[in-house]
Amino acid sequence: MWVHVETMAVSLSEDTSTGQTIDNDRLKRDILELAEIGRNEEDRGLYRMAFTEADMEAKQWLLDRMKLSGIKGRLDGAANVIGRIGPSDPNLPSILIGSHTDTVPRAGMLDGALGVLCGLEVLRILKTREEELTVPVELISFTDEEGRFGGMLGSEAFCGLISPETLYQKDLDGIELRSEMEARGLNAFDALNARRTPGSVRAYYELHIEQGPVLDEAGESVGIVEAITGLFKWLVRFRGEANHAGTTPMHMRHDAFMGLADFAHEIPRILEENGSERSRATIGKAQILPGAPNTVPGEVEFSLDVRDTDPAILDELADAFRKALSAIARRRDLMLELEMQSKIEPVACDPDLVANLEKKAGELDLLWRRMPSGAAHDAQIVSHLAPVAMLFVPSRDGQSHSPSEWTDWEDIFAGARLLLESVRSIACEKSTP
Amino acid sequence: MWVHVETMAVSLSEDTSTGQTIDNDRLKRDILELAEIGRNEEDRGLYRMAFTEADMEAKQWLLDRMKLSGIKGRLDGAANVIGRIGPSDPNLPSILIGSHTDTVPRAGMLDGALGVLCGLEVLRILKTREEELTVPVELISFTDEEGRFGGMLGSEAFCGLISPETLYQKDLDGIELRSEMEARGLNAFDALNARRTPGSVRAYYELHIEQGPVLDEAGESVGIVEAITGLFKWLVRFRGEANHAGTTPMHMRHDAFMGLADFAHEIPRILEENGSERSRATIGKAQILPGAPNTVPGEVEFSLDVRDTDPAILDELADAFRKALSAIARRRDLMLELEMQSKIEPVACDPDLVANLEKKAGELDLLWRRMPSGAAHDAQIVSHLAPVAMLFVPSRDGQSHSPSEWTDWEDIFAGARLLLESVRSIACEKSTP
Repeated sequence: MWVHVETMAVSLSEDTSTGQTIDNDRLKRDILELAEIGRNEEDRGLYRMAFTEADMEAKQWLLDRMKLSGIKGRLDGAANVIGRIGPSDPNLPSILIGSHTDTVPRAGMLDGALGVLCGLEVLRILKTREEELTVPVELISFTDEEGRFGGMLGSEAFCGLISPETLYQKDLDGIELRSEMEARGLNAFDALNARRTPGSVRAYYELHIEQGPVLDEAGESVGIVEAITGLFKWLVRFRGEANHAGTTPMHMRHDAFMGLADFAHEIPRILEENGSERSRATIGKAQILPGAPNTVPGEVEFSLDVRDTDPAILDELADAFRKALSAIARRRDLMLELEMQSKIEPVACDPDLVANLEKKAGELDLLWRRMPSGAAHDAQIVSHLAPVAMLFVPSRDGQSHSPSEWTDWEDIFAGARLLLESVRSIACEKSTP
Repeated sequence: MWVHVETMAVSLSEDTSTGQTIDNDRLKRDILELAEIGRNEEDRGLYRMAFTEADMEAKQWLLDRMKLSGIKGRLDGAANVIGRIGPSDPNLPSILIGSHTDTVPRAGMLDGALGVLCGLEVLRILKTREEELTVPVELISFTDEEGRFGGMLGSEAFCGLISPETLYQKDLDGIELRSEMEARGLNAFDALNARRTPGSVRAYYELHIEQGPVLDEAGESVGIVEAITGLFKWLVRFRGEANHAGTTPMHMRHDAFMGLADFAHEIPRILEENGSERSRATIGKAQILPGAPNTVPGEVEFSLDVRDTDPAILDELADAFRKALSAIARRRDLMLELEMQSKIEPVACDPDLVANLEKKAGELDLLWRRMPSGAAHDAQIVSHLAPVAMLFVPSRDGQSHSPSEWTDWEDIFAGARLLLESVRSIACEKSTP
């Protein structure tokens, strides 16, 4: 899709030498300022759930920020904030940098926001030499990445993956997306017009906190994401027989909980035999019925969340887990019910974009590694429309979705610089004959 | 305490030959009539929780029934219903037959009631040849065996095991025992006077449904209880770290639920190594926090209920379970908290009473077995005051505490006859010089 990046190294070092790089203080100020919007003074958490007043305030703040730097900004039909610099030719595919400023309840200040603010900083710098851009560079802050209404509205609308039905989805309190949008003065059906045409985006970049402990434990500044894990989520039910814990001999029991215990115990073996080092399997939720200390459990219902970056491995794991569950049900004389709750295919990041990031990370002398993304991101959705790339910066102690979420400033600056240099190298490319 | 029963076989067969045995129809009528008191027409369950109107009605019904047969009845200070026949000399220790007519909510018709009604039938028959009784025979229906107020008020009061504090205990709805007794026109503090003197009871008999599947599966009519299991009940907590299920590699997790799964998996081994065939261990309740499918569990709290009839084995099991929990906590880097919630010592039934029951069961040509009681009963409390014996009749499919609780009439009649012949053989004993 574009020329190999080798030729760019020269122009990059030229740019760097001119001092055209991330303004650390300005980026830091932005992060701390945005972190005041939607903040709860009592629990120190941020509450910028999609379409709340705080969420809308953050969008307006971002538009104002862009305006200050002469970047043309707007809301699209899905209330995505979009800014654009560079050539105005609408036929030129753009480089898109994105993430989100909405949050989960009681969030930290970096999840989503960091990617948007690093993108903003990149646009501001590129704007100072706008004439060198051979393609437009866009910044997008996607709506409702955290899925208040069940999906990722902003990126899904952007990729044309929503339908009118989407607008009737409800949040956990039963509030309808459509009415919440209208309450904010938006026309919900405009979201259907937020769709971008295929080919209009040449590459999508997203910088995000890792939300895991790997970079922090290794003392590395940046993770270059090769692939975003796919997953399947099952709801599993074992039905046995509830009996008196004192009067029912062990060999006469049909203990549903022991079925779950057997299964949980098999997880490491199944991952070793059928998974990769990127495989994850989690039982995060379990309900035991009737749930009395002196009653042998008659029923247990639990979640199984399995992830890997390789679709073939995911299939193999699904097979192995299914077999293990069936065998346990037979052995313990339990009834087994399996409900597929969701399935998301893994997304591979674009190999050329990944190679370019690696090259730039080397030039910037960063400590970095290739890694998978275990969490879902807008990039996963945007991959339907364009090649995607993701950068991670470390999450202190792996914390996220909590006020204790943190990344050292130096790592933030390193990530922002890597984003800048990679985007610049591609956005300033001369088209090859 | 009494002469060996060998000499009784003769008088028993004499009695039997005179037709002085259980009146099956009368017993059946009593069972079905009492089952109408406190019955909910919708769910077919009985609701005779202690000190409810239905419970008091059942007590009055029992007093009326005794009166009809010329048996002197009364309520003691703890609202235990007591009937008495035989010699009036207050210094003679009595043979006591007991159980209870209170129920759990939505109960079946046999738990407790069957033991009282079989006892009533035994007294009625012995009453017809009252002059042959060398000691008094008493029937007692104990108050609140099902523990609405946390203990077994009736038998505890009877054995002098309560204090004024007991009267302030509350049920699950926060209703105080004392005020509930007063609402029924009883003086709660009279319960402290229900205490019987040591030596006033020569032997205690309790017939009860098994509440387990053993007799039913074996097709046997009667179980002769050798011992009532003791138990310890722990509340166990593993604290690890809640993490994102996608971003946290398996080897970096401190998954509290996996600690529980490891432990549950060890239970069969621990029972095999340290337990007896009577050992039971049950995880009946577990709560997983935060309990989201995509979050590695940071904390799990679960119950462990362990039973055996041998106090030494119970101690050994407690040791082994503690070691297993500690080892798992170390291996998975979890914090372990252990809370002892209750400990009840096992009770051995009186060997002479057991031998007498076995002999009579043989004479009556019953299909029977020795067995432990895995559930708690008033007999456990009464063992503080007197030697105890228990008989079980089968529970269809092991069901109890539910409207589906059932025992075949023939087994009920068999159990009642065994109770009669055993009690008669001892109650008609001539004292040895």
